[in-house]
Amino acid sequence: MLILVTGVPGVGKTSIIKEGIKYIKYNFNILSLGDIILDIAKKNYNINNRDEIRKKLSIKDQLNLQMEAMKYVKDIEKNENIILDTHLVIESYAGFVPGIIRTFADILRPNGIVVITSDPDKIFLRRLKDMEIRGRDIENLKRIEIQQNLTIYFTTVFMFEYHTVVEIINNEEGLLDISSKKFAEFINKLIGNE
Amino acid sequence: MLILVTGVPGVGKTSIIKEGIKYIKYNFNILSLGDIILDIAKKNYNINNRDEIRKKLSIKDQLNLQMEAMKYVKDIEKNENIILDTHLVIESYAGFVPGIIRTFADILRPNGIVVITSDPDKIFLRRLKDMEIRGRDIENLKRIEIQQNLTIYFTTVFMFEYHTVVEIINNEEGLLDISSKKFAEFINKLIGNE
Amino acid sequence: MLILVTGVPGVGKTSIIKEGIKYIKYNFNILSLGDIILDIAKKNYNINNRDEIRKKLSIKDQLNLQMEAMKYVKDIEKNENIILDTHLVIESYAGFVPGIIRTFADILRPNGIVVITSDPDKIFLRRLKDMEIRGRDIENLKRIEIQQNLTIYFTTVFMFEYHTVVEIINNEEGLLDISSKKFAEFINKLIGNE
Repeated sequence: MLILVTGVPGVGKTSIIKEGIKYIKYNFNILSLGDIILDIAKKNYNINNRDEIRKKLSIKDQLNLQMEAMKYVKDIEKNENIILDTHLVIESYAGFVPGIIRTFADILRPNGIVVITSDPDKIFLRRLKDMEIRGRDIENLKRIEIQQNLTIYFTTVFMFEYHTVVEIINNEEGLLDISSKKFAEFINKLIGNE
Repeated sequence: MLILVTGVPGVGKTSIIKEGIKYIKYNFNILSLGDIILDIAKKNYNINNRDEIRKKLSIKDQLNLQMEAMKYVKDIEKNENIILDTHLVIESYAGFVPGIIRTFADILRPNGIVVITSDPDKIFLRRLKDMEIRGRDIENLKRIEIQQNLTIYFTTVFMFEYHTVVEIINNEEGLLDISSKKFAEFINKLIGNE
Repeated sequence: MLILVTGVPGVGKTSIIKEGIKYIKYNFNILSLGDIILDIAKKNYNINNRDEIRKKLSIKDQLNLQMEAMKYVKDIEKNENIILDTHLVIESYAGFVPGIIRTFADILRPNGIVVITSDPDKIFLRRLKDMEIRGRDIENLKRIEIQQNLTIYFTTVFMFEYHTVVEIINNEEGLLDISSKKFAEFINKLIGNE
């Protein structure tokens, strides 16, 4: 079983996975798609860090690299349940780009997608701590909201194409424990019903 | 002509179809996808009620059963106009699941989809009367809103793939007559312009 | 490079393209899909104006006409960068219809889509000046909001299928210059990074 966990940066995705795994009654291998891509890039493409991927590799090589990562994940899934930490809609140097295009999705065919959401205002404050954005204004908030909504509604394509089950979990400030338990509960039910 | 009518439970979908049909100037056969699936399940799969479908049938058999239902509908459409009462996004035992996946949509290829919407608060109250949900809280309201929005934006895939015409009709409390007339007007225009 | 610019009527799309082009550092041919379709209709289908397309041509001929327009655009793109002014979700005589279906999108395969958005209230007022709508009521505002949201989330299909980069630019009243510069900045970055 392969479950994608997605959500915009600052939503608390990694914390929920880390905390939620404690309540999941089945064994799951937690993988980060970004880390897998970086590992393969270091090994096969002579890359040292994330920035170099976009700067040193051609678009074609970047797509090849991503394809290798997808196949790597799908290969592991033959023997293990996987929670894959990833993004569906990424804010790039220019506009929003997809985290997973059809070519990759046709390989992954995830059983479930969990979108972790949060109040755009809370997301903004968490990002501010990480110094990722400079000015706090309405425009930034609206942009976070758009990226979050694009992520949520992007999942309908997966529902339609791969019969993927989608869950939306709101991670409210200070309620990490509740959100994590909901996350675990969803996965327990999904795998229990397979 | 095949028109899907969809909307989250409690939105007043069935009432609008029942009332709206009076104002439609063409003959339409009103079918419920859920009823058709149940009928076929009883006949061919030794099933007695809806619950048994999920409990007694394998995923593979459930998909076969649904496929038979789609073909049944499409077969009727050769001779009759059909209004098909159905769901695009279903709240399941775990998360949201698609009511119609690509394999089925490629068969149905609906000419139109009507999404009946309503204020999440009104939907909540209607569901409460039916005892479907226990506590009235913000979380339940947000969940209804998400399911409703997933349903609305799911239709873009149908627009893109099958050139389906989409109409969104808001069913305001106490205005069933107006909503039903809008529903009929849409269908009259759609079929009149074919 | 082919960039679609889309947005509901009254959003200020044409103004932003006209103003924004001044700040784009590359040569772009600005085309309107509607104009191209009309030109071909006049030449090949004995049509005099937009209304006649729907009234005089069969659905099949309308689709053929649109297909010719798509191929015409894609042909020009071999030698020139194109900004294509178009619609993703159109409010028709009955319901919402897609501006670009898969058959056409598979030909266009746009590198980028810019969705120009605005506050539904502002859009309404601009349309009112153009006498396009009669009564100002909540229903009209809600309808504008739905069409705008359908347009925004329709783009996820393009992200998924064609790796299209999507940008959402909010055109605030009285800030045309700022919106136009953002529009140009997006295109400059996109083409600069190709």
